[in-house]
Amino acid sequence: MLNAVERKIEQYIISLEHPEILALYRKLPAGKRLRAKLILYIAGNNISSIMLASIVEMIHAASLLHDDVIDDALTRRNKPSLNAIYGNKLAIMLGDVLYSKGFNELSKLDAKIAQIVSDAVIKLSIGELDDVGMSKTFNTDKEQYIKMIYGKTASLIEASACSAALLAGKSQEKYRIYGKNLGLAFQMIDDLLDVTSDSQTLGKPALHDFEEGKTTLPYIYLYDALSDQEKERLRSLHGKILSKIDSAWVQEQMKAHNIPQKCYAQAALLIEEAITLMQTEGETKLLSIAKEMIDRKF
Amino acid sequence: MLNAVERKIEQYIISLEHPEILALYRKLPAGKRLRAKLILYIAGNNISSIMLASIVEMIHAASLLHDDVIDDALTRRNKPSLNAIYGNKLAIMLGDVLYSKGFNELSKLDAKIAQIVSDAVIKLSIGELDDVGMSKTFNTDKEQYIKMIYGKTASLIEASACSAALLAGKSQEKYRIYGKNLGLAFQMIDDLLDVTSDSQTLGKPALHDFEEGKTTLPYIYLYDALSDQEKERLRSLHGKILSKIDSAWVQEQMKAHNIPQKCYAQAALLIEEAITLMQTEGETKLLSIAKEMIDRKF
Repeated sequence: MLNAVERKIEQYIISLEHPEILALYRKLPAGKRLRAKLILYIAGNNISSIMLASIVEMIHAASLLHDDVIDDALTRRNKPSLNAIYGNKLAIMLGDVLYSKGFNELSKLDAKIAQIVSDAVIKLSIGELDDVGMSKTFNTDKEQYIKMIYGKTASLIEASACSAALLAGKSQEKYRIYGKNLGLAFQMIDDLLDVTSDSQTLGKPALHDFEEGKTTLPYIYLYDALSDQEKERLRSLHGKILSKIDSAWVQEQMKAHNIPQKCYAQAALLIEEAITLMQTEGETKLLSIAKEMIDRKF
Repeated sequence: MLNAVERKIEQYIISLEHPEILALYRKLPAGKRLRAKLILYIAGNNISSIMLASIVEMIHAASLLHDDVIDDALTRRNKPSLNAIYGNKLAIMLGDVLYSKGFNELSKLDAKIAQIVSDAVIKLSIGELDDVGMSKTFNTDKEQYIKMIYGKTASLIEASACSAALLAGKSQEKYRIYGKNLGLAFQMIDDLLDVTSDSQTLGKPALHDFEEGKTTLPYIYLYDALSDQEKERLRSLHGKILSKIDSAWVQEQMKAHNIPQKCYAQAALLIEEAITLMQTEGETKLLSIAKEMIDRKF
């Protein structure tokens, strides 16, 4: 089923009649195609759902291209990122091409679907801005963190599920919440992996987020659990390259205060709600996706 | 009339409920609002045309933000560019916010209008990519130059005129050609000014385009007129910072071969066609805009 999406995206790119863009697009890693999967599972294997899935994946690819420039990311899915190989400018421009093609094809679909998806892209781009803005200070506000990851990550997954439900004539609200919770849990687990995984598994240094100034959920929980003196120490390390001693201290404190378990429990709560919703709808494939999400190694 | 557009854009930005984005948006120079003017003159002063004009100007502002990052431009309309003050990353992100809000509002308009405008944004983003790609070699192909400036500059002006004509129930084709020619002539004159103006008037060094590797129309015409030996000299200077001697030589050759006149004549030809089309439609304001365009100081 996903093959049809890959072919459709290629068709969209080929229709631009620009060999350089096609060659660059083919260099991008396809990824898990989570958003496409959701759309196909919800709205079935038909031309409308394949088009919607392809458009959303083009928009997602565009957002990743810009995200990697903004985060100075040199790798994406354990391979060198496009900006690392061809420079930031080309990554920005290819992102703009994919965004504009995505929006153009989106405007050929049902107006309500175009609304849902383009609404999500606004949230996504604001979430990106908030992610960078928040990394300038030590954020201890969980609500603010949730709001930011909702925009940055969950909004397009939510829109995928919700627009697919609309396409299939299913209950939009249930699928919307399913997608939103899936997206939030995905980002929470991703942020947790940065703390619990070794750098080889991650393909980037562990605790990289914190060094970049990002106080993700584990740090918010940890800060809450520490003594005043320890709080000061954690604050003093924010946004800096960590020495081995400091790095070990952060990881010890995370373990000592059961932070991974707390983060995991928070993600699991969201996933449970998502699962319950899909059980009432008899959506076994969507159930599996949700279950697999919290079974990621952490 | 343009005030209504400024207010509408502000409304769109305010609806994002993000004070930082509003503050950044307010720092952007409004510019001439050429695209908005065309839309209002063609489709009249009503809510639909004000919405369309505001959306197109948001998209245009987004493209300029990314353009300045890609061109390493430190000034925009004689003021420091946003990327120069706040960095490239913020300019990319604000551009993405304006693009996505623009597309989102566009998807609420008539589907045909959304098609015309979003088609133009694809051309615009590909034109941007071609502009950068072409600057790596000494381009002597006028057709390729025209194709690139059509994408980069004329496509959105063409789409503005064409979509406004659709909105007003006027002849789309005539207005489309008017907009296209206006856009092409605008870019040709702009490229000519880089050769003929002094750096103070330009707000950037003269011959900057050529130093950046851009062989715009004056260079294509000049190359054509030079002897083989002189051709070699011009080629050898491409994409380099010019010494005073080389810079003076280029400008002398431009004068000696009447290059400004040739470029001007080419732009004037396009403008004349645009004027003729608007005369048959009795569009006096559009006539004036076209006339003013080739009266720019050069």
